[in-house]
Amino acid sequence: MTEAIRAAVFEELAAVGYARMSIEGIARRAGVGKTAVYRRWRSKLHLVLDIVSALAVQGLPAPDTGSLEGDLRLLYEVTSRALRHPVASQVIPDLQAEAARNPEIAEALQKALREGQDGVATGIVTAAVRRGELRQDIDHDLALDLISGPLYWRSVVIRGPKPPKEYLGALTRATAGALKAL
Amino acid sequence: MTEAIRAAVFEELAAVGYARMSIEGIARRAGVGKTAVYRRWRSKLHLVLDIVSALAVQGLPAPDTGSLEGDLRLLYEVTSRALRHPVASQVIPDLQAEAARNPEIAEALQKALREGQDGVATGIVTAAVRRGELRQDIDHDLALDLISGPLYWRSVVIRGPKPPKEYLGALTRATAGALKAL
Repeated sequence: MTEAIRAAVFEELAAVGYARMSIEGIARRAGVGKTAVYRRWRSKLHLVLDIVSALAVQGLPAPDTGSLEGDLRLLYEVTSRALRHPVASQVIPDLQAEAARNPEIAEALQKALREGQDGVATGIVTAAVRRGELRQDIDHDLALDLISGPLYWRSVVIRGPKPPKEYLGALTRATAGALKAL
Repeated sequence: MTEAIRAAVFEELAAVGYARMSIEGIARRAGVGKTAVYRRWRSKLHLVLDIVSALAVQGLPAPDTGSLEGDLRLLYEVTSRALRHPVASQVIPDLQAEAARNPEIAEALQKALREGQDGVATGIVTAAVRRGELRQDIDHDLALDLISGPLYWRSVVIRGPKPPKEYLGALTRATAGALKAL
């Protein structure tokens, strides 16, 4: 039943957003009583925090292709698909917006990012430094921004159409160029 | 009075977000009656659309320093300050979240982006192509993502502390490197 409620939270978040979401709506969608929800989570906030943490643990696969460009390309293929999922493309901006005024959600999102996208990007940079493809003293924070920013901008901020296949190849070359210029 | 109401909308958006914002709250904050608001705008949606369009027209100054790196550096200084403004850092994610489920807000935001941030970035790329610093057939969409994505990721998504001065310099060099690798 916990899984049915979790799935209902995602659907409800995507449909109406955090601010308008209610425990009643979640229970209705999950086909359970309100009490069943409250028995597991104290409030809407705790439910969403739990969901965000679960996402982080699940994480993204860490690429290990043996080259910086190969790893970046794989990361972009996985991320591009994930960000285009209708639930992700509605829920992520919504949680971002809540994070701007709710420190608990902000902290849970930071943690999910560090363990998810940022964790994978850090692994890619560390492996490339070990292979001598990038400088030992590279600025890791800036490297993560260069890796994650452009595809997020295109998929979530601009909300452009699905980028053509060549886009991810060119993005990979450009990002490798940026990291090597650091 | 129109200006007082516009200012109140910004403050109310930052404080409670679009979903929870009401015409009553805006009128109270602006010190006017509800009728004064409804006389100018039909609904909360129209008020916000009007504000977003006004932002776009105001725009960002177009840098013209004579070099790609100089132009990027100036753009990053202005954008970094703008994104760190408390109102921007709360209102932008909120409108992004609404855009995911409201096509009218999505369209107004796209237009504001094209006329604001993206318009300036396009100007920088076009000038660099004219000077021979970048290839004639550069992919403009990808170039905009490379220019705008990383600082947005750092400031709005990660919500990190104010980046040190050297950060903007390194970001400028890295982005110029990425654009030249295209």
